[in-house]
Amino acid sequence: MSVLFDRVAIMGIGLIGSSLARAIKAERLAHRVACADANAAHADRARALGIVDEAGTDPAEAAAGADLVMLCVPLGAYGEVAAAIAPALKPGAIVSDVGSVKQAVIRDVAPHLPAGVHLVPGHPVAGTEKSGPDAGFAALFPGRWCILTPLPGADEAVTRRVADLWRACGMTVERMDPDHHDHVLAITSHLPHLIAYTIVGTATDLEEHLKQEVIKYSASGFRDFTRIAGSDPTMWRDVFLNNREAVLDCLQRFTEDLTALQRAIRRGEGDILFDLFTRTREIRKGVQEARQA
Amino acid sequence: MSVLFDRVAIMGIGLIGSSLARAIKAERLAHRVACADANAAHADRARALGIVDEAGTDPAEAAAGADLVMLCVPLGAYGEVAAAIAPALKPGAIVSDVGSVKQAVIRDVAPHLPAGVHLVPGHPVAGTEKSGPDAGFAALFPGRWCILTPLPGADEAVTRRVADLWRACGMTVERMDPDHHDHVLAITSHLPHLIAYTIVGTATDLEEHLKQEVIKYSASGFRDFTRIAGSDPTMWRDVFLNNREAVLDCLQRFTEDLTALQRAIRRGEGDILFDLFTRTREIRKGVQEARQA
Repeated sequence: MSVLFDRVAIMGIGLIGSSLARAIKAERLAHRVACADANAAHADRARALGIVDEAGTDPAEAAAGADLVMLCVPLGAYGEVAAAIAPALKPGAIVSDVGSVKQAVIRDVAPHLPAGVHLVPGHPVAGTEKSGPDAGFAALFPGRWCILTPLPGADEAVTRRVADLWRACGMTVERMDPDHHDHVLAITSHLPHLIAYTIVGTATDLEEHLKQEVIKYSASGFRDFTRIAGSDPTMWRDVFLNNREAVLDCLQRFTEDLTALQRAIRRGEGDILFDLFTRTREIRKGVQEARQA
Repeated sequence: MSVLFDRVAIMGIGLIGSSLARAIKAERLAHRVACADANAAHADRARALGIVDEAGTDPAEAAAGADLVMLCVPLGAYGEVAAAIAPALKPGAIVSDVGSVKQAVIRDVAPHLPAGVHLVPGHPVAGTEKSGPDAGFAALFPGRWCILTPLPGADEAVTRRVADLWRACGMTVERMDPDHHDHVLAITSHLPHLIAYTIVGTATDLEEHLKQEVIKYSASGFRDFTRIAGSDPTMWRDVFLNNREAVLDCLQRFTEDLTALQRAIRRGEGDILFDLFTRTREIRKGVQEARQA
């Protein structure tokens, strides 16, 4: 791969930030990678791992002179980080991000950016339930999708530079309207996480003896939900607070469907259950055929 | 391993039945393994795979002369299979099962069994979302739990023989009251499956274009639910119909918790979300420490 940027600054060196740093190093996509993380131990760790050239806790210091600043912090910190880096951004710099909600990025980041700085909201759709700089790995991205939601009138050449970065990391890049992105992700990602958190939360409220048994026999299904519900609390709190309408809309549909199933069980309507369980198998096949399984 | 049974008859050669057949063959736990499956193609396939010595569609034929008859059919077929094998069972034969609901087994099978035949309800807590004789594998069992729910006054030596079989397959055997089993499994297995079926079902109702996008971006969380919701429709219909009370009870708790979260999102109460998402991480740690992750 050829070098795409002279200096990349990564804000937040957690799972995604550190995976990106690793991919940039592995593919030699930038001459220099700096990072800033509010957690000094994480910044130190990133430097010790050799996945960045510079690391500290000051966003402006990392962003100074960067061609590309990638926001990899929880959504709730976007406004603050944007305000902090704004004075340090060089003319022509690109600010992009990896957040799971795109309308919020435009709302929180755009107002802080000086004229001549480009905002390219993005979302590499990949992840694990783990957190922190040690959790990242360059192989997180290949074979997955990255969604960019450029603003109306965005400079095409700039959008293409961000797309090239993610393609160099192995992703396939798509473009979408930010509101459509937020609706699709509410279904595919936010609702599943909310449900998993809820069901595992329901188990945490059980009396201690029963809770231990739930853990013990978790291989029967519960286990998969605990994995999802082991995801970063700050990141996910911010996702729900920042994609409220779309999440509540999906949740409403889900609740209606669950109520219908509840009634079918109560009434012993096996046909309704069987029909649904047969239809859901088709979706599973679709996921396998799309090689996302 | 030493031979534990002369003749074992497996009713239903699906995921669990065929995994058991493979484990019995691999560990030489029986001199002869027969199976019966309502699906003639599955019976033929089991024989072709060499995991059973005899295979057909007649339960009585397979059960004749067996020391152990293991019911591995969906719960809804238990009564019918029990009635069919009853005349063929030899005195002293053991009838056991692998079903995910234990009170239903006692209700549906016990009345059919002649005097001198022993019923030992059991549940190897292991599985995948796949079905059929090709889906099974002997390594499904090691490291997992098997729960036996012997009836009051059951012959201890008989219960121990069934326990020995599952131990020889690599499982750790526990005993439980059947109603307690059904309650624990409603939480750890039945509710998670119901929720996964629901959320994937909600997606199947989306307009076609959106549905394709949900599949495309499923790696963001939805994917894990499609795996669970790809499980056998007949088996799961029967689980819900046969563990109705416990499932509805869990569902009620879950719905209350989900409603509370919904309100927290609507009101923007980030602390409530953060607190829950932190507590659920502890359960995840518990699952990992119990080596069920």
